[in-house]
Amino acid sequence: MCESSGQTHAVVLLSGGLDSATALAWASKQQGWQCHTLAFDYGQRHKVELAASARIAQFFGVEDHRIIAVDLSVIGGSALTSDMAVPKDEAGSHCIPITYVPARNLVFLSLAAGLAETVGAEKIVIGANVVDYSGYPDCRQNFLDAFQVTARLGTKAGVQGCKLEVVAPLIELDKAEIIELGLSLGTDYSLTHSCYDPDAQGRPCGHCDSCTYRLAGFAKTGIKDPLQYA
Amino acid sequence: MCESSGQTHAVVLLSGGLDSATALAWASKQQGWQCHTLAFDYGQRHKVELAASARIAQFFGVEDHRIIAVDLSVIGGSALTSDMAVPKDEAGSHCIPITYVPARNLVFLSLAAGLAETVGAEKIVIGANVVDYSGYPDCRQNFLDAFQVTARLGTKAGVQGCKLEVVAPLIELDKAEIIELGLSLGTDYSLTHSCYDPDAQGRPCGHCDSCTYRLAGFAKTGIKDPLQYA
Repeated sequence: MCESSGQTHAVVLLSGGLDSATALAWASKQQGWQCHTLAFDYGQRHKVELAASARIAQFFGVEDHRIIAVDLSVIGGSALTSDMAVPKDEAGSHCIPITYVPARNLVFLSLAAGLAETVGAEKIVIGANVVDYSGYPDCRQNFLDAFQVTARLGTKAGVQGCKLEVVAPLIELDKAEIIELGLSLGTDYSLTHSCYDPDAQGRPCGHCDSCTYRLAGFAKTGIKDPLQYA
Repeated sequence: MCESSGQTHAVVLLSGGLDSATALAWASKQQGWQCHTLAFDYGQRHKVELAASARIAQFFGVEDHRIIAVDLSVIGGSALTSDMAVPKDEAGSHCIPITYVPARNLVFLSLAAGLAETVGAEKIVIGANVVDYSGYPDCRQNFLDAFQVTARLGTKAGVQGCKLEVVAPLIELDKAEIIELGLSLGTDYSLTHSCYDPDAQGRPCGHCDSCTYRLAGFAKTGIKDPLQYA
């Protein structure tokens, strides 16, 4: 099914953050793949990222942008889907941060595998990278490799010979390298949202782990982050 | 985390059908595991199975029964989540039936892995079996084995040493053997729902693949199916 057309189709996980926007730029502009973007309404407190995701998809001319509602708050266990406080100014100090959402990438990749099957995509693109690697187990290459094996075995497309591939183009890049890659491909980072704990106007806090890594990345490149911080 | 208490905890996928009810009977009554049951509101046309799932959980004294909403109709590609007609009187005639939902068990197992992590369960129990094996790729042992490897790599619990195990106690049983196992453990099959295409009163059609396999299983045991068919 996925090999029937000349054009390579890809499902791109697009949270609306800096990493996923860059991954989409890479897939659509550098690889020339026909991209189907996928965002998740999963009970996250920073739901404003869904609007960012739609803006970025539109910016890159994606015609097939979908949002799947999956209520991970039923599972609980994370500061991102519960009333637990989001840690501030503690980036790098945790072994696995409490912003880790149990099995989140496993769930997201599984839904991406389902969509890949229905749209005939042979690639799943995820913006997992080395910075998150230090904390989140589901951002590591060995997990992504194992997932790829599992998805081929557990889907009709895979059983029928489609070599579904999970691609993480940013996995070995740090935040500054990701930003430089994205800018070289024309990414407009003013459209993105990274903060776990935005204010009522949707402005980033500047102090959660995600803001901290983002700001440090921009600082290292010497380029100003186009976002307005609270 | 999952080894901290003397009691073994299990997340049991409980769709409300014959297989999952039997899998729960096996886990709770035969193994004596503390069961956390999980059902999914995934856009299925046979949503009546959710009520069956809750009834069965209550019947077996499960205190932690959860329903996760995940809208698989956004993915499409299945007669169970779209307007495609459910095939009648065609059981066994398809290679992979159109009632196959892309990556469904992959998604369900992923959500179960997330819940296993938050409740400290070291087992995930799924009612996959040999009859479905013939059609659905995500009911096979090699898929379940690969998923187990992936879930250990992609979760905090797994990385911290929890040997999460995916258990499919019915995998080598046919429908008649499943029914006999369930009855020996006191399962009340009048509480279950198997039909993909029930009528407005929730009564099973008797002709879809799921009804056909169920009725053939009861016929082979010589026991009457307690359900009232339309």
